[in-house]
Amino acid sequence: MSRSTFGTRFTITTWGESHGEALGVVVDGCPAGLPISTEDVQVFLDRRKPGKSRYVTARNESDQVRILSGVFEGKTTGTPISMLVENQDHRSADYSRIKDVYRPGHADYTFDQKYGFRDYRGGGRSSGRETLSRVAGGAVACRFLSELGIRFTTYASSIGPVRAASFDPEEIARNPFCLPDASAAEKASAYLEECMAQHDSTGGVIECRIEGVPAGIGDPVFGKLDALFAQALMSIGAVKAVEIGDGTAVSEAKGSSNNDAFAMKDGTVTKLTNHAGGILGGISDGSTILLRAHVKPTPSISLPQQTVSNTGEPCTLTIEGRHDPVIVPRAVVVVETMAALVLADSLLLNMTSRLDRIREFYR
Amino acid sequence: MSRSTFGTRFTITTWGESHGEALGVVVDGCPAGLPISTEDVQVFLDRRKPGKSRYVTARNESDQVRILSGVFEGKTTGTPISMLVENQDHRSADYSRIKDVYRPGHADYTFDQKYGFRDYRGGGRSSGRETLSRVAGGAVACRFLSELGIRFTTYASSIGPVRAASFDPEEIARNPFCLPDASAAEKASAYLEECMAQHDSTGGVIECRIEGVPAGIGDPVFGKLDALFAQALMSIGAVKAVEIGDGTAVSEAKGSSNNDAFAMKDGTVTKLTNHAGGILGGISDGSTILLRAHVKPTPSISLPQQTVSNTGEPCTLTIEGRHDPVIVPRAVVVVETMAALVLADSLLLNMTSRLDRIREFYR
Amino acid sequence: MSRSTFGTRFTITTWGESHGEALGVVVDGCPAGLPISTEDVQVFLDRRKPGKSRYVTARNESDQVRILSGVFEGKTTGTPISMLVENQDHRSADYSRIKDVYRPGHADYTFDQKYGFRDYRGGGRSSGRETLSRVAGGAVACRFLSELGIRFTTYASSIGPVRAASFDPEEIARNPFCLPDASAAEKASAYLEECMAQHDSTGGVIECRIEGVPAGIGDPVFGKLDALFAQALMSIGAVKAVEIGDGTAVSEAKGSSNNDAFAMKDGTVTKLTNHAGGILGGISDGSTILLRAHVKPTPSISLPQQTVSNTGEPCTLTIEGRHDPVIVPRAVVVVETMAALVLADSLLLNMTSRLDRIREFYR
Amino acid sequence: MSRSTFGTRFTITTWGESHGEALGVVVDGCPAGLPISTEDVQVFLDRRKPGKSRYVTARNESDQVRILSGVFEGKTTGTPISMLVENQDHRSADYSRIKDVYRPGHADYTFDQKYGFRDYRGGGRSSGRETLSRVAGGAVACRFLSELGIRFTTYASSIGPVRAASFDPEEIARNPFCLPDASAAEKASAYLEECMAQHDSTGGVIECRIEGVPAGIGDPVFGKLDALFAQALMSIGAVKAVEIGDGTAVSEAKGSSNNDAFAMKDGTVTKLTNHAGGILGGISDGSTILLRAHVKPTPSISLPQQTVSNTGEPCTLTIEGRHDPVIVPRAVVVVETMAALVLADSLLLNMTSRLDRIREFYR
Repeated sequence: MSRSTFGTRFTITTWGESHGEALGVVVDGCPAGLPISTEDVQVFLDRRKPGKSRYVTARNESDQVRILSGVFEGKTTGTPISMLVENQDHRSADYSRIKDVYRPGHADYTFDQKYGFRDYRGGGRSSGRETLSRVAGGAVACRFLSELGIRFTTYASSIGPVRAASFDPEEIARNPFCLPDASAAEKASAYLEECMAQHDSTGGVIECRIEGVPAGIGDPVFGKLDALFAQALMSIGAVKAVEIGDGTAVSEAKGSSNNDAFAMKDGTVTKLTNHAGGILGGISDGSTILLRAHVKPTPSISLPQQTVSNTGEPCTLTIEGRHDPVIVPRAVVVVETMAALVLADSLLLNMTSRLDRIREFYR
Repeated sequence: MSRSTFGTRFTITTWGESHGEALGVVVDGCPAGLPISTEDVQVFLDRRKPGKSRYVTARNESDQVRILSGVFEGKTTGTPISMLVENQDHRSADYSRIKDVYRPGHADYTFDQKYGFRDYRGGGRSSGRETLSRVAGGAVACRFLSELGIRFTTYASSIGPVRAASFDPEEIARNPFCLPDASAAEKASAYLEECMAQHDSTGGVIECRIEGVPAGIGDPVFGKLDALFAQALMSIGAVKAVEIGDGTAVSEAKGSSNNDAFAMKDGTVTKLTNHAGGILGGISDGSTILLRAHVKPTPSISLPQQTVSNTGEPCTLTIEGRHDPVIVPRAVVVVETMAALVLADSLLLNMTSRLDRIREFYR
Repeated sequence: MSRSTFGTRFTITTWGESHGEALGVVVDGCPAGLPISTEDVQVFLDRRKPGKSRYVTARNESDQVRILSGVFEGKTTGTPISMLVENQDHRSADYSRIKDVYRPGHADYTFDQKYGFRDYRGGGRSSGRETLSRVAGGAVACRFLSELGIRFTTYASSIGPVRAASFDPEEIARNPFCLPDASAAEKASAYLEECMAQHDSTGGVIECRIEGVPAGIGDPVFGKLDALFAQALMSIGAVKAVEIGDGTAVSEAKGSSNNDAFAMKDGTVTKLTNHAGGILGGISDGSTILLRAHVKPTPSISLPQQTVSNTGEPCTLTIEGRHDPVIVPRAVVVVETMAALVLADSLLLNMTSRLDRIREFYR
Repeated sequence: MSRSTFGTRFTITTWGESHGEALGVVVDGCPAGLPISTEDVQVFLDRRKPGKSRYVTARNESDQVRILSGVFEGKTTGTPISMLVENQDHRSADYSRIKDVYRPGHADYTFDQKYGFRDYRGGGRSSGRETLSRVAGGAVACRFLSELGIRFTTYASSIGPVRAASFDPEEIARNPFCLPDASAAEKASAYLEECMAQHDSTGGVIECRIEGVPAGIGDPVFGKLDALFAQALMSIGAVKAVEIGDGTAVSEAKGSSNNDAFAMKDGTVTKLTNHAGGILGGISDGSTILLRAHVKPTPSISLPQQTVSNTGEPCTLTIEGRHDPVIVPRAVVVVETMAALVLADSLLLNMTSRLDRIREFYR
């Protein structure tokens, strides 16, 4: 496969540019018989829609999805599901100023180096708008996983230096930052106002907890579940670090404190702690899976920046228009859907691991 | 492909168990005409060989590699390169005690859940010995990359809580920890003695710097160079977090300080800083690539641990024999070779990105 | 990848049902900088369009393609090219009669067995209309190959028992059968009138000649160029046999007559004959590539046929409406575009085969 | 994946040259718990072993296989199965004469064009000996399929112009040609003596019948079961045409005679005829699968042949030594094992096609 396809059995192939006619996704390998509606996908897209608070870009897009194939009488048919979202807010003229200049922190320069030229309108294919296709595709994965009793809780655990100090799942949807802590949300609000006043931006951390995953999912070597999550999350534009379970903290821990003791609970093997984040040797162990993604500050800031043009002339660039001062809130659903795609794929792949179960299947 | 193959154009397929007859690797897609000898591979294997200092396992293995195919008259032929290392130190009897008991921090339980049973001798396929095959395969990738002027510097940046405070590349090979700082190496030595006296283990951090990578390598969406590095490094058994460039620090940074300004130097576009770690939008920008992997403490410790048997009986396990008190020093070359495999693959894939260069190629 | 994607570097992912909202394709891996327009694709789609003669279905479809991404200012950008064709002639009501009955020679029964149910409108995903997406994607491959001087001549070499006895390339476009022989076209016309009068259908043979392919393309084992052509052509719904070069005739030949002698011509190695069809050991040898696909008679015939319902009731089925009495003429362009996809992919893959050329590329 | 791996879930990766140290295969994705022994694989290798009759090459090889990984206590573990066969009969000196000359009908010229040079000893990687690795890997697939009640009957249906006129499955193993007709075997023997007296060679046809395949296996578009069989069989060195069911005959048939009527038998849907060869729309229909491969005459003949050297000098080549006058008998098991690999892979892939069955699996 070329590199716009993700997954091996449950796959998405995404396409579309920030200011092209439309963006979309083809989901292939989704099992037949899954009830799904446009609305099931739309609720995910709405979570990343622009214009919902003063802390996100004002771009005017309704982001209404259409399902063009693969669903018949309300159920998936097992054949490819094609979905499409039209771009409404083209305004290509706005981008003429950055046509010939490399924006710091963006992919303008590297695209030119790779392809010889680029669609300079709003970042083209390298725009964060590309994640819209992932979210639509991942929404189908989430719908599928819900049938197997798998549940996601995804949220911002920090916005810039402001960290959530408590965890209230109800709170996540109540503030514009997806923080699980109302008091942290207030502090984040104040911090962002400060950033915006300085024409600056900030980063943050997104956490994803996955419950209900059966033990045994994932492969022992290159297909380790944590390796696939790492690829999935690091493939999201602004993510620069990925952690599983205790993550970076393990490097300073001792074996005696980092190992999770096993015990029996209700007749099942469980772990007394979960430093491992639900994955041992690349394979799920039945406890909660915990992922963490570190998101960089929005590179589009309206402070003057030193850069060069595509003909090698040094210059100063001031990016106009309003941009998200922090990407984190809109990226929460992207992390969730990417994680769902990994898990859907790995659950399907795992079905072939044991002869006894295959024999039973084909009996 | 199934999950024991890594890469798309320059691939390795690994096989072998800790205490089986042998371990090995098939390298496929290596270009024809590359000069390579057994010795070129052996120097990499020697960097991860057991028994080299008192801080690594005493397992007695010479780990001599044989090249069985794909090389003719000292050069690669373009067909698969098969390499094999025989296991000498089987001693399967040692492992009878853990046959029915799940070791904390290991994959015993998850293997049983996935496959219904497991090769319990020394961890079987989930043993760290599996990385031997990766190192042999990645050595070929390193040999290939060296022909294109690409250079790796890989080292431990911390051992447990002891961090390197200075960077002397000459020092890396002089101490048993691969630390680039002689004074830190002394402190690490003291810290490890303490761990060993407590029958405990510790973790650490491995960094990899890659120089000489041309701009334009990597793909914009799922094949982002950083996403592939993340998968590659997180697929190494004990790694629980991966960072690119400033990594986790970006989440607290502001856009104005995190963006790298562009400038001209000797007629080429360069960056004045390198917070991005050499990758923008998933594509290399020509500056040094910087990767960081956080390694957990060795799970095999000789303290008594609470666990359960495979029939659900709670029990206490004390692991005997000598194990590495820290995995980091032997994992340094694994990080380097996995990174090399990603890069070799991406460099080959990139050759098809532009029509003008393809036309020139086929003229 | 799941199975709606074809190729490894130059790939297409197709989607869409016969009577869904639309059909389409995502082309991924097409090099940047290729000039392409909607019209370049449309000419290929027009070659398979229904309603062009009395020997093809009367279904009323304009089959106008839209390019939604991956092309900017008239050139490909190197990112995915999404194309879409709306279905106009839904008339779903017509299909209610076959909703519960398995049409002989069709995939109704096997779809139900695989997926548990099916989109019964016009065959859904198993309809020949699915090839529209392939043709749109393959048109881009043809456009790319033309830049490298590669030329296709594809035609019907027989319609039922009527075989072309002469070869006039100009004639192919002049008759409704794509026969390269005007006299055979007249006979085919008479034969088809007879079939239609009997409410029956017939098959035929499609040949594809490819000129200008450099020597060295294809891989030695599973990626043999002929193996990939075989998969590509056999994946077209009605094809039941594929031949390369002398094809089935080789089984009765002797080595002395089947081997192609080598000779020098204008300083280049050539073959004095071409029994091999331009491929030796799976790799192109620089002479004309010759492929042949055997197409079965249209299974939709209006004679009464014995069958069963999806509840296991024996019954007699008479298919109404007008169907192509022979698929061959509209399948010619499908064979050509599938062959082009294989070749485009293999040409890109081949660029990584030699170190000396890679070194030159990255100099 | 690169091109020495075949399959997606049940895969083989092959390696080795005709006159290298060894040849081998890595089987990945084989389910855990399959009982398998060296002997199970050896019986397949023995079917293609040289030196068994006067109609095959006299090369002296015992072809004893060793299993190096992936099997523990007599059962597969679910991890890669590595197998190896040492080459005993190197005699590299014999090949010095063809080092610089292109043998007609061989891949010498195309390898040089692709890779710049080649391992000229006995054809290197392009030798028919490469199929040994496929047979070892496919033997595991056959072992797996036998657990699901799937049975293969593979035989020569013709040797040169001599066709089997009757079908006695017991006869296949009794004559050196694998013909199912004793009288045809006598004629084939006479014909081959004639060929050998003329220093010439001949081709033939191999048929494979597969019984016990459940309906519903295969995918509707590019993963059609027949397309995958076509790739698999055409990837065998000497095969130049592949047919499914009625094969080439369909092009002259009418729809009314080519369609297979459905009927009920013992409560199951069956077909009254099997022109389709057990596959409808790319998906198995539960009846016998029928494949046919046309094999070219051995290109190595001892008649003088016109050719050129690798420096462009015209010359005459006379190949010495004894070569198989017909490849067919030894290729029978190659066809069978390649078909088994396709089927094993497709059976595993099919397990994910329906939500209801997945839900049951994960209950």
